[in-house]
Formats: sequence, structure tokens, C-alpha cells
Amino acid sequence: MGNLTEEAAARGGAAAFFAEGTVRAGAGAYASGSLLTVEQLTVADVAEILAATARLEAMTREQRARVLEGRTIALLFYESSTRTRTSFELAAKSLGATTTLVSDKSSSIEKGESLKDTGLTLRALGAEAIVLRHPSSGSADLLARVTGLPVLNAGDGMHQHPTQALLDLRTILLRLGRDAVTATTLSGVTVVITGDIKHSRVARSNAMLLPRLGARVILCGPEELLPEEALGLGEGIEIEREFDKVLEQADVAMMLRIQRERLTGVALDLQEYIARYQLSEARLAKWPGLLVMHPGPIIRGLEIAGEVADSAQSAIEEQVTQGLAVRRAVLVRALGARV
Amino acid sequence: MGNLTEEAAARGGAAAFFAEGTVRAGAGAYASGSLLTVEQLTVADVAEILAATARLEAMTREQRARVLEGRTIALLFYESSTRTRTSFELAAKSLGATTTLVSDKSSSIEKGESLKDTGLTLRALGAEAIVLRHPSSGSADLLARVTGLPVLNAGDGMHQHPTQALLDLRTILLRLGRDAVTATTLSGVTVVITGDIKHSRVARSNAMLLPRLGARVILCGPEELLPEEALGLGEGIEIEREFDKVLEQADVAMMLRIQRERLTGVALDLQEYIARYQLSEARLAKWPGLLVMHPGPIIRGLEIAGEVADSAQSAIEEQVTQGLAVRRAVLVRALGARV
Amino acid sequence: MGNLTEEAAARGGAAAFFAEGTVRAGAGAYASGSLLTVEQLTVADVAEILAATARLEAMTREQRARVLEGRTIALLFYESSTRTRTSFELAAKSLGATTTLVSDKSSSIEKGESLKDTGLTLRALGAEAIVLRHPSSGSADLLARVTGLPVLNAGDGMHQHPTQALLDLRTILLRLGRDAVTATTLSGVTVVITGDIKHSRVARSNAMLLPRLGARVILCGPEELLPEEALGLGEGIEIEREFDKVLEQADVAMMLRIQRERLTGVALDLQEYIARYQLSEARLAKWPGLLVMHPGPIIRGLEIAGEVADSAQSAIEEQVTQGLAVRRAVLVRALGARV
Repeated sequence: MGNLTEEAAARGGAAAFFAEGTVRAGAGAYASGSLLTVEQLTVADVAEILAATARLEAMTREQRARVLEGRTIALLFYESSTRTRTSFELAAKSLGATTTLVSDKSSSIEKGESLKDTGLTLRALGAEAIVLRHPSSGSADLLARVTGLPVLNAGDGMHQHPTQALLDLRTILLRLGRDAVTATTLSGVTVVITGDIKHSRVARSNAMLLPRLGARVILCGPEELLPEEALGLGEGIEIEREFDKVLEQADVAMMLRIQRERLTGVALDLQEYIARYQLSEARLAKWPGLLVMHPGPIIRGLEIAGEVADSAQSAIEEQVTQGLAVRRAVLVRALGARV
Repeated sequence: MGNLTEEAAARGGAAAFFAEGTVRAGAGAYASGSLLTVEQLTVADVAEILAATARLEAMTREQRARVLEGRTIALLFYESSTRTRTSFELAAKSLGATTTLVSDKSSSIEKGESLKDTGLTLRALGAEAIVLRHPSSGSADLLARVTGLPVLNAGDGMHQHPTQALLDLRTILLRLGRDAVTATTLSGVTVVITGDIKHSRVARSNAMLLPRLGARVILCGPEELLPEEALGLGEGIEIEREFDKVLEQADVAMMLRIQRERLTGVALDLQEYIARYQLSEARLAKWPGLLVMHPGPIIRGLEIAGEVADSAQSAIEEQVTQGLAVRRAVLVRALGARV
Repeated sequence: MGNLTEEAAARGGAAAFFAEGTVRAGAGAYASGSLLTVEQLTVADVAEILAATARLEAMTREQRARVLEGRTIALLFYESSTRTRTSFELAAKSLGATTTLVSDKSSSIEKGESLKDTGLTLRALGAEAIVLRHPSSGSADLLARVTGLPVLNAGDGMHQHPTQALLDLRTILLRLGRDAVTATTLSGVTVVITGDIKHSRVARSNAMLLPRLGARVILCGPEELLPEEALGLGEGIEIEREFDKVLEQADVAMMLRIQRERLTGVALDLQEYIARYQLSEARLAKWPGLLVMHPGPIIRGLEIAGEVADSAQSAIEEQVTQGLAVRRAVLVRALGARV
């Protein structure tokens, strides 16, 4: 892990922004069930994952509990996480799988064992897939290569968080009442992603996935949190600095968490950020058709007003529920089970 | 969580003692299976919980494993705990439920997500009840209100620990050979609670519950750990400073853990505390009929002699076992299952 | 725990080396399924454990999942561990047992509760066996004595790690194609254990077990990590300082992890250690029949070259797999189940 981390630490600024983007699925040597990046998925893959999600949802609890009965899934979390870890864990358990959690807080990861060797150990212990969260971009890719196991990327540094993009997509489709998943499913839909785009694997994953289904994606935020280089994320990405101007065009507003420490040394102060970019009650009142999303954890009163998060226009809890649903499907896919 | 904690920290002394007592179940807007305080329970409720405990105990292991099969229970622990967490976890698992543990050590709780949002997330992930331990008084109440889920209070600050009072009650009833649970079940029984009453949610919960079943409850300890205001805990509470005098009258001695750091700045030093209040072998020898209890963790040689803890008069391990049994019943009640 | 730890801390140097060796199973007052030291096992016991391992392996997943169905096993880990904890946990779960993990990071162990009281609590909660890892030598012995439960020693200080010795034995037997387990099974087989012998419970356990099956065991390392007193570990133990000389005679090379901090104040520096004792590609190339083993976690580039760890001569992953298999058998034995 040392090298990976040092490497990541050594990079910085806009160069890092692109560098992160260049981690790719590579030579196709991965287990077919791996989910490392959204780039790796074809539109047909996405359609199949969401179709499997629906089929799993339609099952009874008893039926679902037999889908992965007796199978073993390791959860390898080098970063803290309530929602993602619990979501994968409950998804796996609801399918009858056995899980084991290895986290940096309770394991010999502390003793400096490499990610590679931890992965090989989990494989030797019978893990049939590994769910990985790790602070270094490219770590999921590395783990998939060295273990040959299906790896589900649950967030790797500032790089990717593909199940988040899938759950966001499903939340949008359900709210908009759209069913099919094709390259034009989201035609005419404008999604605004606002906040700390620069450090967000959620923004990156959504910005790469949604345009491929026809959505228009506008990134919004101050220069410090959203450098111009972000245009390079993909075709059809736009940048807009004025939140109020961008809300006029938006069907969906994805708000991202602002970590106070990230604003240190940034020209903008917290109060100014709130004034310009918070999704406040006043702003929401103007756009009664706007769908409000947030990957969580939310900081009420900073990037989003508490009342907005709790409003009927908010799909925040639904996103969590869709996360569980979608993760069931990607686990089933990882283990090559049929549903 | 920030506010809750700050609030709790800002309070102190005797004012705090009463303030803690004022957190109430409120407007009855809770899920019917919640267990937030002992005050909330009628004597009939207590009787029903203990009856369900007995019915669950009478089942075979296989029968019990079907009671909550496929149900999901979240364990949300903001404070460390071996016995309470493990007890709830094993109780839930023995009933066939799926559990997930979210603790402050392994979760984005560290990232400052509010208790409310963590609760909403767990609900959205399919949790049907939440077991909460939290350093702030009133937190269980808050969580129950915002999630609408049944919440089982596994200790909230210095406020309440209702399952502890229930397990202590059951332990006493079994040792005394009493079966029915009515307002006079414990008539003629004197329970002495000795130690750091001021900081103890266990003392508070027992002092509120036991008198309602007819017990006489005497609190014992030095002024610093037992302010006069404690009389306000309920009808029939008495205070007595001399441990030897109070033992003469006691059928049950509940000893509470003394945390050394709590004695800092207190007029009494550790050796003096031990001389005056330790349940020693010499003291026990005088009262061969006395039932010895302790909620744990015990500090051998401080509030209780090791030999006393291990003696035949001690019900300490039995309390742990009754904890598992009683928690099964409150989990079943929380999820509205029938046994 | 206080005393145990202080005691261990007070000892040091060569005296400690012997002192550790003197912790014995004692008066036979242990639950029959306990596994505290390899000394406690007769050759017939070892044969039976490995035979049970094979029988469990031959079962289908469904059959195995019924072996310990409804039984409860506590994992009590006072030290971090990925492989050992996960191995025991997955072994127990694969047999259908319910597990609960109590680790120093998430429990009131922090509050200073004694090992004894934690053990009594786990027993009162229904644990039928306890898997213990603890920094103090003799702790597993203590826990077995006070609880009367079967205790599986998963590493106690620098003392013993008996399941590691059993899994190493099974790995060797499988690679050598030997089946029976008798006092001469390993006749003619030379095992070299190299590295920080002084601090290694793995070395100690293997050095005590393997000669009883007929193996010749040579310990190798610099004086600072391998004092002459190690000869006292048992009959037939030899010491050799020159790694290259010892490799000439070896069938099996067990490499041990070097913790950098242990080399502080040692006459040897890291580069010199690597030059003299690393199992490098160059060294391996000379001995194409050598079986390479390592209990993990490995430090690639220090005691072993990464290429060597990944080579076909390496059994490192197989050791992990055999760990799971052997631990199933010792859990079954602990709970008195039949397979």
C-alpha cells in the first residue's frame, strides 16, 4: 500500500485531477464480475444490472436468501464508511452469503501488510469476491489484477465509486418513471452536480455514466473545488459557476458534501460558499420540480439546508435504499449467480 | 450529534442530575416497540416482557431461530461495550435476525454525520429496529422520533438503560422464587444500590423501576457520588450514607463500578472509599442471605472484592445470562413478532 | 489483565525466553476441547485433528453448514489480526456456528475489565468456546482455567500459536505427499526456521511440534534474534547462524517476519540482515526442491523477496487455506461435535 499511497500523496492539483482519470481497466484480464469503474460498463451491462436489481426486488425474502447461500464475500475497508459498508454487508447477507469484514481499524493492515497480500490471503480463505474501499486511486484495479477475484470498487481514492453512480441512476429513473436503459434514456434530462467536484469520486462516476444514457451533466462550484480540467471527464460535460443560473436548467440537483478542511486556503470562505452554493429552502422554493439528491453523509446547513434534505423533493433516503438494491445485483453478477 | 454532546457537556453538577431526569417519552409518537426508558413501561408491560422472556426460554434452539428469521436489526454503538453489544447481538442472532453493527470506531460517524442522518440511513437500508448506545442523554428518544423505528435504548448518557433494569428485575425474581409481576411483587424486599449513583444510568433505571413493583430502594454512597437531589428520582427512594448500616436492612446489594477518574477532586480518596463502601468478604460474611449484584464491568478490589464477585451469593453472571434472555423479548416486542 | 501484562513486561531477554516456555497446561483441569499449546497434544491427538480436517474437507458445503448449527463461538481478540481472526471466523461460520467478535478496539476491554471477567461474561452469554488472541503469554491458559470453557489459543504473547503449527504441519504433509501422522512421519525432513525466532510464537510452536513427528528442526538467525537458549525449546533443536549453509540441508524453509523496530539497537542493520538472511531469488534458484513457507504477514523485500513469495515453490497461500481447514477441525473438537 505504501507506494500507492505515497504516489497519490505526491500528486496534487490539476495534474492529479487528470492523473486520477487515467486509471483504466486495462488489458481485460479481470474476473468478469469485477466492477472497477463505470467506464468498464457498456450500456447493455448497465441495463442488465438494473434489470437484475428489479428481479431481485421482486423476489420474496426467502427466495432472495437462497441466491448466494453458502457463498463467501469479504468486505475490505481501508476507510471508514457507514452507509457503503453496511449497504454491501446487508445486501450480501440478504442473499444468504457469509461475509467477513476486514477494516483498517481491526486488522493487521496496521502492520503494513500490502493490499496485494491481504487480497491473496482473503482469496486463500475462500472469499469469492472482495468489496474494497481504499484511499488510493487504482487500488481496486490492482486488487482485481493480483487476486483474479471479482472486485467491487466501493470507492478508491478520488477515482471511482461505480455502485454510487448505478444507485443514483436507478433513483433518477424511478423518480422520472423511465424504465428502459438505452443511450437515450435520459435525453432531455439535465443533472447538475454541485460542490467539491475535485475531490469527489461520486461526481466523477456520475459524470462519466449519466451522459452515456443521454443526460446533460453540468458541474457547478467555485474554481478551487472545480478546476476547468474537469471538462476532460467526458463528452458533454459542462461547467457553470453560478448555482442560481444552473438551477434554472436542472431536473436533478446532486449536492456533494463540503469538508470544512478542504476549504482551508481556498479563496472562498464558508459563509460565502453557503450563500452562493447551498441548496437552501429559498432556492428550492423556486424549483418545485427539482429532484434533490446527495450521496451522504450530508452536512445540514452547509451544502444543503436540513429542510431541503427532509423535503418531499429529496430522494436522499431513496438513494440509500437503491444502493442496497443495486449492490445485491452487482454481488450476484460478481459471483456469477443467476437471478 | 454535535449539539447533543455539547449540551450534555455544558450541564453539570446537581442541576444536570435533574436535567437528565427530565428527558421523557413525550407525545407518544414513538413506534410501539420502542424501549426508551423504564418510565414508559406500565407494570403490565413489564409483566408481558418477562412472560415473553420465559416463553422464548422454553423454546428449542431451532424454534427460537425462526422467530425473527429474515428480519434486520441495526446495532448503533457510539460507546464501547462488550456485554451490552454482544448481548443484543447474540439475542438477535439466536432469533434468526440479521444484524449489522455500526460503531464509532468503524464508521463515518467520525465524519460528523448526525445521529438523525445515521438513523435515516439505517432505516433506508432496511433496519427494522435500532439498538442504540450513545453518550448523550435523550439520544434514544431523538432517534426514535426522527426515524419512526422501534429504538431500544442500550444506554444513553447518564440517563437510562432500561434493559439493564429489566434483567436485574428478572434476576431478583428468579433468586427470590417470585413469579408474578404486579405492583406488590417485591413488597418487603429492600434493594440497596451503592456506588457512583450520580453518573449511573443503571442506578437511575433500577431506582425508577423497582419501587413500582413494591421494592424499597435505598441509595448509598458519599455525597460526591450521590447528591441529595437523587431523592427526586421517584417515590420511596431513600438515601443512606453508611454502608454497614444499610446492609443490615438489605435483601439485595447492587454494587456499581467506581471509575477512578470520577474520584478525582472528590473529598474521599480511593482507600477511604474501599474502607467505607467496598462489598468485602468481611461484610459479606455477616449477611449470608444477601444477594450480590453488579451490572459490570466490575473492578475487583475496588467496589467489590473478587471473592465476593465469585461467591455463591453473587448473581453477577446470572445477570448477564438474564440480559440475553430479556433482550430477546424486547427485540421480539420491537419487531411486533409473536411468541 | 493488568498483572499478566505487567509481569510480561517485567520479564525480558533470555530469561524471558525460558520463562515463556514454562507456561504449561498444568493440572488437566481444562475443558477437553481446549487447544492451548502444542505440548498438550499427543501425536494421536494431532493425527485425529488432521483426520477430522480431511473429513470436513470431504463434506459438501451444505453438510458442513450443519456441523455446528446453532452453536455459539466467541472471538476475543486483544491484538489486531486479519488472517487468524478471519480464518477462525470463516471456519466457524462455514460450520453453521454463530460468532461474535470482541476486540480491544470496540469493547469495554478498554475500560480495564479483566480477562477473567470478560471470559465469564462471554460464558454467561452462551459462548460455548472462546478463540483468544492476547499479548500476554499464558493468557489462554488462564482463560481456560477460569471459564471452564474450551479455549482455542490464537496466539498468546510470545508463547504459543498452536493452530499455526498444525496448519504448517498439514501444508508440509500435503506437499510431501505424506498421509499418516506418527512419530516418524517427518523422518528425514529438515525444516529451517529463519528470522526473529526470539519473539515468535510461530517458531516456538513449530519447533515444539515438528520434531515430535520426526522432523529435524534448525533455527537460523543472528544472535540478537535467536539466543542460544532457544536450544531449550526441545529435543533435537539445532541452531545455525549461516543461512546459506543451512539451506543446503533444508527441505522446508519457514521464513519469519522481521519487524523493523525489533532491529533497533541490534548489532545487525537492515541491509546486512537482508544480505545474510533474506530468502532471495538468487538463493531460491540454488534449491529448486525447497518448499518455502511464511506465516504472514510478509514484508516483501525484507525477509523474503516478493518473487520468492509468489513462486511455485511457495506454499504461503496454501498455508492460509490449510489454516481455515485445520481451524474447522479444532472448533469441532472444542465443541465436542462429531464428524
